[in-house]
This record gives sequence, C-alpha cells and structure tokens, in this order.
Amino acid sequence: MSMVVAVVGATGAVGREMLRTLERREFPAERVVALASAKSAGNKLPFRGGELVVEELTPKSFEGVKIALFSAGASVSREYGPIAAAAGAVVIDNSSAWRMDDEVPLVVPEVNPQAVMHRKKGIIANPNCSTIQLVVALKPLHDEARIRHIVVSTYQATSGKGHAAVEELEAQLAAVVAGKQPEHQVFPGQMAMNVLSDWKAGQGGYSEEELKMVNETRKIMGDAEIGVTPTCVRVPVVTGHSESVFVRFERPLTAARARELLAKAPGVVLVGDAEYAPGKEPQPLHAANTDPVYVGRVRDDLAMPGALNLWVVADNLRKGAALNAVQIAELIA
Amino acid sequence: MSMVVAVVGATGAVGREMLRTLERREFPAERVVALASAKSAGNKLPFRGGELVVEELTPKSFEGVKIALFSAGASVSREYGPIAAAAGAVVIDNSSAWRMDDEVPLVVPEVNPQAVMHRKKGIIANPNCSTIQLVVALKPLHDEARIRHIVVSTYQATSGKGHAAVEELEAQLAAVVAGKQPEHQVFPGQMAMNVLSDWKAGQGGYSEEELKMVNETRKIMGDAEIGVTPTCVRVPVVTGHSESVFVRFERPLTAARARELLAKAPGVVLVGDAEYAPGKEPQPLHAANTDPVYVGRVRDDLAMPGALNLWVVADNLRKGAALNAVQIAELIA
Repeated sequence: MSMVVAVVGATGAVGREMLRTLERREFPAERVVALASAKSAGNKLPFRGGELVVEELTPKSFEGVKIALFSAGASVSREYGPIAAAAGAVVIDNSSAWRMDDEVPLVVPEVNPQAVMHRKKGIIANPNCSTIQLVVALKPLHDEARIRHIVVSTYQATSGKGHAAVEELEAQLAAVVAGKQPEHQVFPGQMAMNVLSDWKAGQGGYSEEELKMVNETRKIMGDAEIGVTPTCVRVPVVTGHSESVFVRFERPLTAARARELLAKAPGVVLVGDAEYAPGKEPQPLHAANTDPVYVGRVRDDLAMPGALNLWVVADNLRKGAALNAVQIAELIA
Repeated sequence: MSMVVAVVGATGAVGREMLRTLERREFPAERVVALASAKSAGNKLPFRGGELVVEELTPKSFEGVKIALFSAGASVSREYGPIAAAAGAVVIDNSSAWRMDDEVPLVVPEVNPQAVMHRKKGIIANPNCSTIQLVVALKPLHDEARIRHIVVSTYQATSGKGHAAVEELEAQLAAVVAGKQPEHQVFPGQMAMNVLSDWKAGQGGYSEEELKMVNETRKIMGDAEIGVTPTCVRVPVVTGHSESVFVRFERPLTAARARELLAKAPGVVLVGDAEYAPGKEPQPLHAANTDPVYVGRVRDDLAMPGALNLWVVADNLRKGAALNAVQIAELIA
C-alpha cells in the first residue's frame, strides 16, 4: 500500500509521541512526513531506525497525504485543517479547534468508533486528554446503567501543558533542592511542591479545561443529558493524569458489577482489589509510557446507594493524545 | 494566673507547632511542660526566647497541669489521656483515639465551640486535619441552606504524615534531580513526581482517612444525615492540604450568596473573584505557615441547580492540628 501520513507539529511533545506511536504500532504508512513551523524545519527526528527531516508546513504540504495528524495548536488547525482536507487527506486533529463543530466527529475508538464515518468536513477531532481517559473508563458503566451525573476532580500532569512546562517544573525542583527561589514563566506561579489551577478562563467561574470536560464528554457519549461537575487541577507530576470520579446512574450500579464490566472493557486495566490497600491504586508514575487507562478504587458510594467512585489514571501524552489519534487513524486505514 | 500547660509529643511535627502556636498567640500559661518518650527526654526545644527541656512522659507528669495538649499518636492518648484527666487536666487530644467517643466532644471552635462543655471524660478531641478545614469552610453554608451531600477529593501534603515523610519526600526529590532512583520506606512508593493514596485501610474500599472525613464531619456539624463521599489523595507538597468540594443543599444556594457568607465567616479568607483566573486560586504554598482556611473558586454547579463547588486550602499543621487545638485551649482558659 502507498499511504502517506503527515504529522503537523512533529517537534512538539505530542507530535514526537505521535511519531513514536506510529512506529511502535507498526502503522501501515509507506511514508511519514514531519511538518512544523519554519523555525523547526531542517531538524531531524528519529523514526523507524532512521531520521525524518522536518519540513516547513505550507499549503502545499498535503499533496498525496492520506492521513494528517495535527498537533500544533488550535490556530494552525483552523487554518491548515481545511487545506489538508481539501487536498484529500483525512485530518485527525488533536487541538480544540474543531471538537465542538457539529460536522466534525469527536472520537475515542473504544467509545464511539462509528462516529468516524460522519466526517463531513474531512476532519475528525481528538478529544482533550482529561476527557479521553474519563470516557474510556465510564463507557461500560454508562452502557449498563446510564450515567446521570459525574463529579470529577483531576490531578493533571505538567506534560499536558507542553515540553516547556516540564522543563520549568524540573528547573523549579532543582532550585528547591538547591535551596533557591524557583522562577516561573510558563506556570502562573511555583508548580514544584505546589498545586495549581493554570488553564485559560472559561465562564461561570470555570476554566476552559473544565468546560471541555463537560461538552466533550456529552458529545463522545452521545448523551447531552449527562451532568458533569469538573474541577481541573495541576500537580507536580511529569506525565500521567489522575482523576477522582463520582458517578451517579439512572439505574443503581454496584461496585462489584462495575468491576466485572471494567475487567473486560477495551483499553481499560482494572487495578487492585475491592478492598483499599495503600499504594496499590493506579499511579501516574506507573501509567507514564504505557497505553492503558488504569481504573482502581472502584467502590460503592457511602452517601448515595447505587452510585460509585473510581480512580482513573492514564498517560496524557499517549491515550490522552497521540495514541488516541493514531487509533483513529487505524480506524480510517 | 498560674496555668500549667503540658504538650505531649512535643518533639513531633505537630507538637513543635503547638509550642510555636502557644507562643505566637501569647497563650496565658505560666509554665509549659514539654513531654515526650524516654528517648527524646533531655532534648531542648525553643520557646519564648528560651528553651524547654523535654521531660519523659510518665503517669506522674500531669500533677498541677490544667491543660494537656496531646499529639503523640492514638495509643499514647488512649493510655495517658484518662490519667491526665484524672489528675485534673483538661485533655485536648489531636489523635484519633477519642474522636468518635460519645462522651468526648469533637471541636472546631468556629463551628461547634459550645460542645467543649460536654467533656464528660475530661477529654476534648481535635478533629483530623482534612476534616477541620472542610467544616470551617462549609459551616456558614450549612447554616444557610442545610448540606445534604458533600463530594470531596483531597490533595494532601506530606507533613500530615509526620516529619519522616517530609524528609523522605525531600530525599526523593534530590534523587530525582540527581538522576538517581528514589528510595522509599515511609511512603508505600515514590511520592516525588507522583500521586499516592497512602493511608491505612478502612472498609468498603475506603481508607481510614476517608472514613474519618465522613464520621467527623457529621459529628462536628451535629447532623448525622449529611452524606459525605470522600477520596483522599497525597500529593508531593510539604505543607498545605487542598480540597475540591462539591456540595448539594436542602435549599438551593447560589455562588453569589455563598461568597457573601464566606466573606464574613470566622476563620475563612475568601480568595479570588467570582470569575476563574489561573493562579489566583488558594494554593498550599501560600497557605503554609498561616492560620486561615482559604476558600476560592466558589461557583454554581453546572449539573445540579442550587449546588456549589469550592476549592479549600489550609495549613494542615496549623488549622489542621496545632492551631485548632490551641484555640480549643483558649475556649477552656
């Protein structure tokens, strides 16, 4: 076969992970084109034992391209997504640019694979990292008992904010260990040894990140009546988002039954026993550089019979971004 | 006046903070006795510009003592609490030993100061750190609209686990910065750059820490029908617990009205505006070494009209332990 795949934003944290994921999963691409801004053109990226020379993104970059994976920010996606689609590529976009467009499917392959068919604009959107792991964990429970309300508090890793954020966290930690005052430019304050809420403002007192969790969860699940109460928080972790999740259903669901469903759910690894054991729950340090969504601490709610609590952890760069995008590409291919 | 105050467990993280708090608040003690185990006896602790020589805790330690502040673990409190009370001291106990005893009041001075009168055993219990800041923040809202359900996820600091935990976190961070593999003994795994659940097991899949939040909240609020859904999580922070809190009421409460109530609530500092702004929310790094309970991100719930969300941060060694205990002592004095 002669499939050409383009990765737009190939030098970013997610772009690099996309290249590694295409390679690791032996994606059937004859050729992969690494695209980025002019200032990154000429850089070399390791791929399949050799190197890809980064090319400058231009309107002509998509000739002959079958699948274009975008992860270069919303403005690049808004400008170049339609150009790539017009050139005949299927665009799989990791930015927020197209996610809530009615003519653009928002896809998590374990949850709504059939939605890829309805790509009227030739564009498929990859959901936000914190939403992907949530819906992978909750879909089997929703199918069984219909979710009515989710209260989710996140413990999000710094790599979700890009490579510069990770570098700043590491520099701050080194400063703290050396007894110096940490400096900050990427974060709105000290991230090391602290907890921050560092997203753009949404409305009603919510951050954009939080509103994404509400809207994207409903769109992916195909149920506009799911209530979502989000609190998004950044913690000093490099990679691996964690989520504390309370779920209330239309029909009561027990933890025992939920564990049965999760044990066989696609993309999910059920961690730990029904009883609590310290340090045996899913952890970001263990999830980093792996593919699954880890679900643990599945327990019956103490206040509301038939409701449940879970602890959901996944690699935000893999399942939260690059892996999910490549899985969508596999559905297309 | 001739009041003698004893601090039991004076060399521990909370014991030291108790001495600093007695000094800072100019507690009217003629004499303060620092008590600890035999192996710490003879150590010197700074106090009021001089030093206290630590004495060994024995059954005779409480002669002439009016108030005994205990923070040496539950087994010491169970053994020596009744001895101190029999000697005529009012015991204010920071351990979990007596908290759920029907004849022992569990007191947060901003919430239920009148309960100190009912100390049938001569013992008053100081609640758990994560509960104290929660009830200080929620009491004015409960008085206004009657809380029916709380969903709380915590981001707890390592100093809540004692001084050895802080030292282990710092050693782990130094190892990470130096590119070495961190070691762990106090934590059930790596705490640096990670998120852990590291408490003793309770039941039903919950940790002891989580069940404390349920039972203590109801006892302090004096309302056994308050539903509490807890998830307790440790983050790599030295001092300052943070809590993401969803609250549903009997009567609808708006964020605007809640902000009015919180702005004048005792012990509370309301942080930030009604709109979201990154980095402007309460943070553990800012709360450490201060007295208040900081409440921010007060916002109307997106899923359930009349419900609210808040972000609550406080110094777990001060308001979460030593300060609350000394405030109880002030009620007695």
